[in-house]
Amino acid sequence: MTETAPRPTLEAVAALAGVSRATVSRVVNGGEGVREPLVQRVRRAVEELGYVPNRAARSLVTRRHDAVAVVIAEPETRVFADPFFGLQLRGISKELTAHDSQLVLLLTEGRDDHARVARYLAGGHVDGALVFSLHLDDPLPGLIRGAGVPTVFGGRPDWSDTSDRSVYVDSDNRGGARAAVRHLVSLGRKRIAHITGALDQTSAVDRLDGFRDVMGDADPRLIVESDFTPAGGERAMRELLDRRPDVDAVFAANDLTASGALRVLRECGRRVPEDVAVIGFDDMLPVADQTDPPLTTVRQDIEEMGRLMASLLLTGLDRGHRDKNAPDAPPGVILPTTLVRRGSA
Amino acid sequence: MTETAPRPTLEAVAALAGVSRATVSRVVNGGEGVREPLVQRVRRAVEELGYVPNRAARSLVTRRHDAVAVVIAEPETRVFADPFFGLQLRGISKELTAHDSQLVLLLTEGRDDHARVARYLAGGHVDGALVFSLHLDDPLPGLIRGAGVPTVFGGRPDWSDTSDRSVYVDSDNRGGARAAVRHLVSLGRKRIAHITGALDQTSAVDRLDGFRDVMGDADPRLIVESDFTPAGGERAMRELLDRRPDVDAVFAANDLTASGALRVLRECGRRVPEDVAVIGFDDMLPVADQTDPPLTTVRQDIEEMGRLMASLLLTGLDRGHRDKNAPDAPPGVILPTTLVRRGSA
Repeated sequence: MTETAPRPTLEAVAALAGVSRATVSRVVNGGEGVREPLVQRVRRAVEELGYVPNRAARSLVTRRHDAVAVVIAEPETRVFADPFFGLQLRGISKELTAHDSQLVLLLTEGRDDHARVARYLAGGHVDGALVFSLHLDDPLPGLIRGAGVPTVFGGRPDWSDTSDRSVYVDSDNRGGARAAVRHLVSLGRKRIAHITGALDQTSAVDRLDGFRDVMGDADPRLIVESDFTPAGGERAMRELLDRRPDVDAVFAANDLTASGALRVLRECGRRVPEDVAVIGFDDMLPVADQTDPPLTTVRQDIEEMGRLMASLLLTGLDRGHRDKNAPDAPPGVILPTTLVRRGSA
Repeated sequence: MTETAPRPTLEAVAALAGVSRATVSRVVNGGEGVREPLVQRVRRAVEELGYVPNRAARSLVTRRHDAVAVVIAEPETRVFADPFFGLQLRGISKELTAHDSQLVLLLTEGRDDHARVARYLAGGHVDGALVFSLHLDDPLPGLIRGAGVPTVFGGRPDWSDTSDRSVYVDSDNRGGARAAVRHLVSLGRKRIAHITGALDQTSAVDRLDGFRDVMGDADPRLIVESDFTPAGGERAMRELLDRRPDVDAVFAANDLTASGALRVLRECGRRVPEDVAVIGFDDMLPVADQTDPPLTTVRQDIEEMGRLMASLLLTGLDRGHRDKNAPDAPPGVILPTTLVRRGSA
């Protein structure tokens, strides 16, 4: 343990400034009703002693902690292996820092730890929560609602409870998927396959729906379930080549999956895009531009999603502060996606 | 309020405000059904005493939050770009989860945000802090001491205050560096260079000292300052080839730096290890085994460092709970390093 020097107290500040503790307290909390010369004296004492006001006590008055929790419903290993989360956190971090709010990332080993996360959220340590990468059968959304903190979700939640009016930010997954598959059709491809994402997440379900919007009742062997990881993409591509060796195009649910599929195609001597055209989703850099060949993909602005989640939460907190009866924010904000053409399709 | 002083109780707040405990409790829990003048009196008493309400039932009894903060003194972008931090967090996460303690990662945009981090630490949200990647002129250590929470550091801190007895976990950086350079000497190399890490961190200083232990007063042109990143390694290698085109061995301060150096050597037509032997530091997988050629390096157990930091903190918390007069834990724990021989040297 660090041997801690005693933290300067309110009493010490009061003594140095020659005022009462109540005066110090009032100055620290905004200075209303205190004469300016006293305010100056207190501030000088605060500075001189390096007094750090006890936020927990202060937040009882202001009911603000100036901290926002981020919960990613994935094991810590996945959070650090997939650059998607780093990008989303970058947007969140910039926005929170601009509002002097502390980003508190709650990491877990897995789903078993979500009750503990909810306890922390309920414990009065943060003003609100940003939650992403939800899975359909995860108890987390219910636990978070139980915790009673303002929450913005990243990605459309899919509660069976239709009365839920959770605010969320998402990309146009279905529209983006349609654009990708239409592009493959326009290239004259006939046997277009889809390697799905993890189908317990709405983003994967929506991209599959977009594929089906264009392809109708395609041969079910052309749809292979996967999990958004490079290794999953490799497995799925092998299975696809086994099921339908004549496949001439692949729409992969994200860039990491597409990168795995590209490796297997190269291994098996298929030329991309001549023999098999490949499209990903995300436009995750430096993944999408460093595959061989560079990846045609559907761009979503992951960093902006994070920024917007944080912004909606902070705006909601301010509004709640100003007027408890203000109308609810819109439940969902959908960001557009765009097709980015590189060498793979 | 100092960390060791007894925390103000509900009773103390009640006494100061001149109200019953039940009234304080009601105000702390939302204030419903309490007349406004009483609410004000209680809030003032709460502030003056620095009373921290513990909403979770358990922490009312144990004064524990079952949460530990992790502070990495790097911008969020760096945290997610360098796999070192992911590995250290993996060890920390496993250990904390095994003790049902929540990992609370406090991310920042940079040094300007460290005062806010210290406020969060001081705010009664966590039982202690694990702090790593400190830089020599960073105000963070002082701020953390001011926050008064038990702390374990990752990497030897280098305070000028020699009375500081901070607990830390580190690797044998100097011994590992000596082993690397001795290996290069044993291969018959004569013009051995060192690409340093960021010299405002003790790990980089210690590795440079280890290099000097073996090489004595080497030509100063053989020592190039860098920053632990792949791009920094590229820049340093170019400068080195410019200064001393006859260089026949490089000890790089970490694997990422070595990977950048290898790229430049290949670009410049130097064969590794025939023309220039290269050794890294970390044995970071999948970096060290995927370079071309695979990297000879000094292995440190990064995940174990994280695990041990968490374990020391939790043990200290328990000990502090059992017996306030127990002797201090040893200030530093140094983990051994080992040379791992692959193709590059």
